[in-house]
Amino acid sequence: MKPTDMAKEGTEMTEETEHMIEKNGAKETETVVSAGDAKEMRAVILSGFGGLNKLRVTKKAMPEPQEGEVKIRVKACGLNFLDLMVRQGNIDSPPKTPLVPGFECSGIVEAMGENTKGFEIGDRVMAFVNYNAWAEVVCTPLDYVYNMPDDMTFPEAAAFSMNFVAAYMMLFEVANLREGMSVLVHSAGGGVGQAVAQLCSTIPSVTVFGTASSFKHEAIKDSVTHLFDRNIDYVQEVKKISPEGVDIVLDCLSGENTGKGLGLLRPLGTYILYGSSNMVTGETKSFFSLAKSWWQVEKVNPIKLYEENKVIAGFSLLNLLFKQGRCGQVKTVVEKLFSLYNQKKIKPVVDSLWALEEVKEAMQRIHDRGNIGKLILDVEKSPTPLMASDSTETSEAGEEEEEHEGDNDNKERMPFIQ
Amino acid sequence: MKPTDMAKEGTEMTEETEHMIEKNGAKETETVVSAGDAKEMRAVILSGFGGLNKLRVTKKAMPEPQEGEVKIRVKACGLNFLDLMVRQGNIDSPPKTPLVPGFECSGIVEAMGENTKGFEIGDRVMAFVNYNAWAEVVCTPLDYVYNMPDDMTFPEAAAFSMNFVAAYMMLFEVANLREGMSVLVHSAGGGVGQAVAQLCSTIPSVTVFGTASSFKHEAIKDSVTHLFDRNIDYVQEVKKISPEGVDIVLDCLSGENTGKGLGLLRPLGTYILYGSSNMVTGETKSFFSLAKSWWQVEKVNPIKLYEENKVIAGFSLLNLLFKQGRCGQVKTVVEKLFSLYNQKKIKPVVDSLWALEEVKEAMQRIHDRGNIGKLILDVEKSPTPLMASDSTETSEAGEEEEEHEGDNDNKERMPFIQ
Repeated sequence: MKPTDMAKEGTEMTEETEHMIEKNGAKETETVVSAGDAKEMRAVILSGFGGLNKLRVTKKAMPEPQEGEVKIRVKACGLNFLDLMVRQGNIDSPPKTPLVPGFECSGIVEAMGENTKGFEIGDRVMAFVNYNAWAEVVCTPLDYVYNMPDDMTFPEAAAFSMNFVAAYMMLFEVANLREGMSVLVHSAGGGVGQAVAQLCSTIPSVTVFGTASSFKHEAIKDSVTHLFDRNIDYVQEVKKISPEGVDIVLDCLSGENTGKGLGLLRPLGTYILYGSSNMVTGETKSFFSLAKSWWQVEKVNPIKLYEENKVIAGFSLLNLLFKQGRCGQVKTVVEKLFSLYNQKKIKPVVDSLWALEEVKEAMQRIHDRGNIGKLILDVEKSPTPLMASDSTETSEAGEEEEEHEGDNDNKERMPFIQ
Repeated sequence: MKPTDMAKEGTEMTEETEHMIEKNGAKETETVVSAGDAKEMRAVILSGFGGLNKLRVTKKAMPEPQEGEVKIRVKACGLNFLDLMVRQGNIDSPPKTPLVPGFECSGIVEAMGENTKGFEIGDRVMAFVNYNAWAEVVCTPLDYVYNMPDDMTFPEAAAFSMNFVAAYMMLFEVANLREGMSVLVHSAGGGVGQAVAQLCSTIPSVTVFGTASSFKHEAIKDSVTHLFDRNIDYVQEVKKISPEGVDIVLDCLSGENTGKGLGLLRPLGTYILYGSSNMVTGETKSFFSLAKSWWQVEKVNPIKLYEENKVIAGFSLLNLLFKQGRCGQVKTVVEKLFSLYNQKKIKPVVDSLWALEEVKEAMQRIHDRGNIGKLILDVEKSPTPLMASDSTETSEAGEEEEEHEGDNDNKERMPFIQ
């Protein structure tokens, strides 16, 4: 979808959304009800694309599992950079709002639909969800649900699913990480970065080059062989240490860095574009200028790849799971990762836990690159008193906010909260 | 190098070549001497870029090994599509003419320079050479020389080196061929195609889709799961059998097929461009229109790769060996391949043997896609009587031919010879 189409869809969305709510009846309708009613649950709602003000916690009808689905009482949810892009509507084919964000969670199986062999009520599970994870209860097809290792905590599981699966598939299935190779990863202090570093340490003699904000260096220096400040010229720094370059470049930065990343590859090296955190760094820019940069990524000449013996790849775990139906392959990867976890070779790094009502502060922390490891929404956690009055607001006025384009996000930014 | 630069270099080449010959003295100078003189040897000479008339057999000064080099009494040389591109000068940074073509041979070690541990006189070896293979004697650095398995014949070894190494590295190092995957290979009857098919058969449940001229189907049908005529719409045919596409596409066709190949990939699939046989199919077209197509290959948007979870790679074994210094990695691959050969899991397919003097006929056979498996120059073979008068011609007039552009190649094409 091109930026102009996206904008068009944006204006059409309000009417369509209203229509959708009426048509779908109780399941989709938001209502304000007193807590404790078993037919409802709390969830984070994105009322429209834009800034932090589009998020709030509200009550929604309790979802019930359809055939092949597992109903999970959610304990912890993962928060990803991608969720910030979703909030801004800055993804391909954005879904309609209002929606409940979130793609991963952990919890306890509470009920099952027909044909859900392999699961029992009370199972501790980790799950992928195609939106709707940031809620007290989630239903998702059993293909996306995995029984957790006994020793794994719920926050660990929620920190584990997307980051470790993505890191593993990029390193071992897209690229072919072997002994003696070298890897460059950006945002080495983030969830994926830490997963990459840990997985690299499971292979002998792998050199990891990482970029991260300087204040994180002390905390993560043991996980990365060579650490550079994210604002310096990493190409020069890598070449000082390894003039021939590296075998694998993992790039979540996008755009202008593709050429840099490709240039850093050794022969037979692989550049993987797995996301695009540049997209959300300039949160005060208008939606359109962000969307434009997404489509202006420099293109690659296959002949140059041929001459230089290079590989370029794209990796999107969500597309793989929810558009391309590769659940079987992901399941195999999850099993391998759980085995590594049980052998204590890998362990998700949890940055901090947040109540559902603190989702704005949590997002701001990711945006400001404050985190080391993963941010987790802890569904049973109470919000800190300071934030409670603001964040627990459940007014239904949200729908009307959709037509604001959120250009004034900056004004209402939360202060950085540890 | 762009087409215009290439053309410019072409005109400058004559003078430069003359200069080079004077400067380099005896080693590079061609002389006509009686056979039997130990200081000379027979070699195929390309006098300038162009058609078949640029090739002839002549005597050259006997090369002697420098430090780190092995001197090989050549028994068999491999002939590749790439050699036709070299003949036309249709490669990036073409070398200066006159030159002795050929990148691979097998033979017996006759002498060694200093520091050539690991080799002894009399060793049966397979070798890569950076040009100069099509001769009775070759000197090449020991990094490019491998002791052959005892059971391997010289023609097999010459058929083995480039095709099997390229096929192995593409399938197992660039892509990541595993059980249950599917592979599409063009020119399934050619040297690389047959190597790919055999290597795929070493992994359980791999489906091989191949395209080849119909008359080859009977001969190669057992090596390929699904065989299509090279003139039909293979995209449609593959999709009929496997609607989701394939895991690996190996494309030696180049240009307009990149998009087709990418479109056929399953999620996490890898498209590999490893050469460009389209370049030489229209041998009557002028040099310039050929060169242009090389540079008009459609470019690839990394964002599309991200959305579709796809990988695009280029692979050039010669660049890897001679420009990028990855001999160590190739040596490891050769060892693995020799092990597979010794286990009788793979066996090079030799199409036909040709005397050095029959190189034109051999090239014509590749050009006409007549071969099934590899064409070999058998250095000890005598030319067939019919061709002898034409092909053994060793006149020095070749140098003057350089300024002809070879547009009349077609007129002097050899009839197809089995």
